[in-house]
Amino acid sequence: MSNPRDRIGASKGNLDTPCLVIDLDLLERNIRTMQEHLTSFGKKLRPHAKTHKCSIIARKQMEAGAMGICVAKVSEAEVLVKAGLRGVLITSPVVTDQKIIRLMECLFRDPDLMVVVDNPTNARMLNEAARKQGSRLSVLVDLDPGMGRTGVPFREGLALGQWIESLPGLRLRGIQCYAGHAQHIVSFEERREFSWGWMKQAAEVFRQFQAHKLPAEIFTGSGTGTSEIDCRVPEVTDLQVGSYTLMDTEYLHIGSSDDPRKFEKFPPSMTLLTTVISTNRREFFTVDAGLKALYHHGPGPSVKQPEGLEMRYDWAGDEHGKIFLADSGKKFEIGQVLELVVSHCDPTVNLFDFFYVTRKGMVVDVWPIDLRGKCQ
Amino acid sequence: MSNPRDRIGASKGNLDTPCLVIDLDLLERNIRTMQEHLTSFGKKLRPHAKTHKCSIIARKQMEAGAMGICVAKVSEAEVLVKAGLRGVLITSPVVTDQKIIRLMECLFRDPDLMVVVDNPTNARMLNEAARKQGSRLSVLVDLDPGMGRTGVPFREGLALGQWIESLPGLRLRGIQCYAGHAQHIVSFEERREFSWGWMKQAAEVFRQFQAHKLPAEIFTGSGTGTSEIDCRVPEVTDLQVGSYTLMDTEYLHIGSSDDPRKFEKFPPSMTLLTTVISTNRREFFTVDAGLKALYHHGPGPSVKQPEGLEMRYDWAGDEHGKIFLADSGKKFEIGQVLELVVSHCDPTVNLFDFFYVTRKGMVVDVWPIDLRGKCQ
Repeated sequence: MSNPRDRIGASKGNLDTPCLVIDLDLLERNIRTMQEHLTSFGKKLRPHAKTHKCSIIARKQMEAGAMGICVAKVSEAEVLVKAGLRGVLITSPVVTDQKIIRLMECLFRDPDLMVVVDNPTNARMLNEAARKQGSRLSVLVDLDPGMGRTGVPFREGLALGQWIESLPGLRLRGIQCYAGHAQHIVSFEERREFSWGWMKQAAEVFRQFQAHKLPAEIFTGSGTGTSEIDCRVPEVTDLQVGSYTLMDTEYLHIGSSDDPRKFEKFPPSMTLLTTVISTNRREFFTVDAGLKALYHHGPGPSVKQPEGLEMRYDWAGDEHGKIFLADSGKKFEIGQVLELVVSHCDPTVNLFDFFYVTRKGMVVDVWPIDLRGKCQ
Repeated sequence: MSNPRDRIGASKGNLDTPCLVIDLDLLERNIRTMQEHLTSFGKKLRPHAKTHKCSIIARKQMEAGAMGICVAKVSEAEVLVKAGLRGVLITSPVVTDQKIIRLMECLFRDPDLMVVVDNPTNARMLNEAARKQGSRLSVLVDLDPGMGRTGVPFREGLALGQWIESLPGLRLRGIQCYAGHAQHIVSFEERREFSWGWMKQAAEVFRQFQAHKLPAEIFTGSGTGTSEIDCRVPEVTDLQVGSYTLMDTEYLHIGSSDDPRKFEKFPPSMTLLTTVISTNRREFFTVDAGLKALYHHGPGPSVKQPEGLEMRYDWAGDEHGKIFLADSGKKFEIGQVLELVVSHCDPTVNLFDFFYVTRKGMVVDVWPIDLRGKCQ
């Protein structure tokens, strides 16, 4: 295969498929919109790179005003700190000896690196590793908003904070509370009440930290789905939004403060191009994107181009998809390229090595998805 | 991150997770078992590399007696032919100008390359490209076993064959009929009747080819789920099995000729290692493999190690999974490594860059998953 950068200057419609395409105007607009939104509420932005897995986008977010960058895994942090980014927060506990060695290598490059902790034994291990290296590792107490995925129960937050504060190799900075299960609640009002319920309990822990003279400079959490909601919790210092950059149908279908049926504040900046490869049926056509190019999770993708035709995509195995046309009189020819908004952007991005970056339909750059596959 | 090859000599239990591990004894046994099974029926083996996406495994299959190798996409063929493999069959139509250029580059390296065709216009395009290059491209007529994914209806197979035979840049070799929708039918008897129904219609087209003096040297198709079934269709020349190498819970749960409840002829040679990272709940523990490490498709994965405990895995978002223990009195510590048989091997393999290859629990090699991400 030729170098994808050779396609710079090409029209989007002439790209080989399946591939991911970014509309740079929309991406820049989304980055700006979220930054302005949070700034207007006096909050900081600590965007999550697990969505886009691209150090170039992370850098754009920092340049636009973000005060740090989140990742889910140590292997993602490794890529970002090697790319020169600073202030990386790892939002899941790092618990094994091998991962802690990798974490310490990241800390060596990024002294502002932070990690969350939800277990006293883990805090002790991190303390020992940091002391051995002559470093001090910033940590946040991870609080569980009723999901049970990671985090301590609220009632144990203060005690874990006090334990961390007693360990000289660690520097307690505050708390994290991420209510992942709130993000896609369809009703905006229900989502608001649900998220506030958890965030207010986390805020109570934050005030306990203050009352007990524990460091309480950071209260981080939230996601794209609650970005209009958690910005109104006074104690929250920064929001970990990710999907707002690229967007997907999963987020487009939730209600927002503007409209109970949709969330259009952040138009999808990323699309998937796919080509019709077989047209022997009247009921549907076969395209070249299946499970391995469009992650099968969440609601179905939507067909953006060609416009004016009512269409539906469905998966047809590992390698293929089917396109159903509402108007059965219409027929596509083999080679027809379609543009889809994907179902769930995070795991779909993770299937590709690069984005074609476009302005007004022309390829202007190619960005490596350099955190792709970094699940460790 | 350090070079994964540095882990050669390590014990499987000490590998950093999530990662994919191959038990080489089991993989070699599966390769041998399928080869012997098909040879005993007088059939050839043309294994599908879309499952393992690894040119080293493809080469092992060839060395064990396979007469060629299948891929789903041109970008996969590119990797295999560059790795020196010959006799590659692309099992989906290749229809765009750009893909045909890439196909012709593959043909230049592998004169035995073949591709399927399900459209007369496409046949003409391939003919022109081959003639322009001064080559002759081997093609198979792709027949649709009622799925509508790719392929022409049986009644149109002969006419398409005749059209191809009239094009001097193409060399007609025979037919393909792949009944993907038959592979996972749970009842062995139902699967047999269903698959034979389609394969016998394809065999009729194959006999039409013979009656009309069209080349009919290849009738390829079948998969792991019908490998005990389609080998009994006299006209079938070779089987395109893939999953038998690595296996997954989707295949383990179908009935077989030996047992109506399971299919144990090919023990799972590939497993996923994942680590417990959070243990603050009594009902479940959190592990470090989620949607991005274990593709969410098919039945749930099964927990293989530690043995003797009844456990269930469920996905908990992009980055995490939950392990439910039947015995709620038992508790894991953070850092505990678990070994899972994955749900659907093909798309899960596509999430990783390499396999750790083990014998008796020790890492003996690292194999790149060099077709990973090749969805074009």
